[in-house]
Amino acid sequence: MKQKKFLLPESEIPTHYFNIQAVMPNKPMPFLHPATRQPLKPEDLYPIFCKECADQELNQKDAWIPIPEEVRQQYASYRCTPLVRAYELEKALGTPAHIYFKNESVSPAGSHKLNSALAQAYYAKEQGVTNLTTETGAGQWGGALSYATKKFGIDCAVYMVKVSYEQKPYRRSIMQTFGAAITPSPSMSTRAGKDILTRNPNDRGSLGCAISEAIELAVSTPNCKYALGSVLNHVCMHQTVIGLEAEKQMELAGEYPDIVIACFGGGSNFSGIAFPFMRHNILDGKKTRFIAAEPYSCPKLTRGKFEYDFGDEAGMTPLLPMFTLGHSFKPASIHAGGLRYHGAGVILSQLMKDGYMEAVDIEQMDSFKAGVLFAQTEGIIPAPESCHAIAATITEALKCKETGEAKTILFNLSGHGFVDMGAYDSYFSGEMQNYHVSDEDLARFIKSADDLNK
Amino acid sequence: MKQKKFLLPESEIPTHYFNIQAVMPNKPMPFLHPATRQPLKPEDLYPIFCKECADQELNQKDAWIPIPEEVRQQYASYRCTPLVRAYELEKALGTPAHIYFKNESVSPAGSHKLNSALAQAYYAKEQGVTNLTTETGAGQWGGALSYATKKFGIDCAVYMVKVSYEQKPYRRSIMQTFGAAITPSPSMSTRAGKDILTRNPNDRGSLGCAISEAIELAVSTPNCKYALGSVLNHVCMHQTVIGLEAEKQMELAGEYPDIVIACFGGGSNFSGIAFPFMRHNILDGKKTRFIAAEPYSCPKLTRGKFEYDFGDEAGMTPLLPMFTLGHSFKPASIHAGGLRYHGAGVILSQLMKDGYMEAVDIEQMDSFKAGVLFAQTEGIIPAPESCHAIAATITEALKCKETGEAKTILFNLSGHGFVDMGAYDSYFSGEMQNYHVSDEDLARFIKSADDLNK
Repeated sequence: MKQKKFLLPESEIPTHYFNIQAVMPNKPMPFLHPATRQPLKPEDLYPIFCKECADQELNQKDAWIPIPEEVRQQYASYRCTPLVRAYELEKALGTPAHIYFKNESVSPAGSHKLNSALAQAYYAKEQGVTNLTTETGAGQWGGALSYATKKFGIDCAVYMVKVSYEQKPYRRSIMQTFGAAITPSPSMSTRAGKDILTRNPNDRGSLGCAISEAIELAVSTPNCKYALGSVLNHVCMHQTVIGLEAEKQMELAGEYPDIVIACFGGGSNFSGIAFPFMRHNILDGKKTRFIAAEPYSCPKLTRGKFEYDFGDEAGMTPLLPMFTLGHSFKPASIHAGGLRYHGAGVILSQLMKDGYMEAVDIEQMDSFKAGVLFAQTEGIIPAPESCHAIAATITEALKCKETGEAKTILFNLSGHGFVDMGAYDSYFSGEMQNYHVSDEDLARFIKSADDLNK
Repeated sequence: MKQKKFLLPESEIPTHYFNIQAVMPNKPMPFLHPATRQPLKPEDLYPIFCKECADQELNQKDAWIPIPEEVRQQYASYRCTPLVRAYELEKALGTPAHIYFKNESVSPAGSHKLNSALAQAYYAKEQGVTNLTTETGAGQWGGALSYATKKFGIDCAVYMVKVSYEQKPYRRSIMQTFGAAITPSPSMSTRAGKDILTRNPNDRGSLGCAISEAIELAVSTPNCKYALGSVLNHVCMHQTVIGLEAEKQMELAGEYPDIVIACFGGGSNFSGIAFPFMRHNILDGKKTRFIAAEPYSCPKLTRGKFEYDFGDEAGMTPLLPMFTLGHSFKPASIHAGGLRYHGAGVILSQLMKDGYMEAVDIEQMDSFKAGVLFAQTEGIIPAPESCHAIAATITEALKCKETGEAKTILFNLSGHGFVDMGAYDSYFSGEMQNYHVSDEDLARFIKSADDLNK
């Protein structure tokens, strides 16, 4: 019998997060205070984030950050996650490539997001914080933080992008089951939300806007902090448990990846699977390719611009050096809600700039076509976000078919699609469409960032 | 760190199914031909079922039936499933009991049903069958058979109980993703469906009716057989991979269950977790208690009658000796669609009669209360069916709290509830209700079985 899954016992759950900042040849440029344009220090972030997260955010020295035992114990509910050889997908494609995927869909919240949610909720509890606020797009981060806060006895308020709130009612129910309070964004409960709704009462929301609302609630509420599910350095770092496990599991499989692929919204699941392998490119001369799969309709890496921009729509965050479509960018209502974000994480942007990674854009319909093939071959219905990684994987595997090369491809299955069946319905019924963004619109959106760099 | 999960490698996937019929002190009474009242032989079942399944159905001799390697290879996508210690549930209850659960929710279809679906689809393929028909209640069996038939290149037609078809649109989409054709039942596509709709155009369906429709399609279509997801002996036997793995995993945990619990519709997931342990009660003098948790509104074991009855509403099946509420029983529209069936499997009914197992009934609201506590503590949102097992487990764990006994309780988490969030919504919103069945109504329904035993 061919070995299908490569498993690790709980004792192999990583003991440290890998902080790629410490080994990057070019360190990320500093975060800037929007008014003074001075580089931020960790204490500048304390009003918004938990202290430990703020310290981790700007830590460029320590390559390995210990994972608290309480967090590892919570990870044990679902980690180590399986590494799976996609034999049946290979067969369906007729490719000589060896395709592996790391199955992060097995977490309680159904995606990789819990890896950072548990860490952030734990640090909050340790600091005496009683409330966390956050935003959520697809609802995967919101579900994860709802569960994580419940585990550590903290209250949780979630601003959910309105289009997702409507498209994904089951995600709402999941957050409710885990005990969180959920508000569709933009809402009238914050100044940021009011401003947007006043300009356009029919605004269906974006991650950028929901972030503004969650931050506003955090800074205006005693003993309350904000938790972000992607983009930031500490979030990406928490996700490295994925790649650290995968590294050991690829060893069990007797292979090393030629290509590592993940979908890309703000960069958290990509960082998680990629950074531990990327360190061997940086330090040991390995030549693995790292491919970020982003939506055609939200092309920050393939068509965005590297410059300082706000992380949110209302301009409440520090200025971040990143590939951006402009903080005023209005992403199309694609079903992959978790990828509807205007910017790429700071570390990722620097790595992209320095040629350590590449990016491809995927049409919505192609992503679902890939997702259905994956479901029918490997049995897991993927989240719409993860469908992008699968589509990019299939492209690479078919290139191998042409060249006859038996490359080893590893992708991250960031989450399952059980709660996204409405999106699949839309695909099967022929109602789904592709969304493009014209050069003119793009230039107009990017100008909102350009204006900050003058 | 406390060990949370007890894992087995793929090499430990069972090589044989356990056929409890071979070791039962009192063998099940024979199936009877409805017209002649003569005991059935396997060949009498060949028009409906695959030959191998029919042979297994009436096999009372062989305790161990080899599992085909192709089936084991498919099991490797998700098996061995984890055995998990529910530390956090124990803590929330303040019980000295040790609670374990077998997590069958990790299968591609989200429940234990795939264990039999893969076997049945394989046997069909081997026999040259090109089409399988079936019924589904909650949609878990339909989803499982859709996936299994896709794996083995067979077409699949599913009759889905109308109330579930409406309550669980995501289940439909899952079956569609796996390539099956789905019809709400009762339908006008069969004589059985037409008869029911003529009597009551608003009939919202039942498993009994959907079975009638699926059998009718199978016997009237060339090269087409029928596959059932529960009740029958061979189906229950395929599920024993659950308990066989759990037995090894409990050994890893250094414990042996005092109590084994599962929810109960027709009996398949109960059989799966229970029979391997029950053989030690029968053969080795172990004293484990086996508790079936059934819905208060569908109380076949607690208030049904042991006698011959049809397995379906229209009376197309053989006469089966079982605990039944009468084949005319109309189950209430509870969310646990998989438990809405009038009878208990033949083997299970005999074991119940002989005192090897016991049963409890659970109110719908209590089942969801238990499910939410489980989600908030153990992180897995359980299927409405599985909530019944959790409620029964909590009852036993709280008894331990009163007596101070540290009993070892093992329950089967038959499936997850990601696709049932509408049911949770109904619970949270206060719209959900309990359903009772009066003694008078029950007597009237059971009369439909009594009339067959005169």
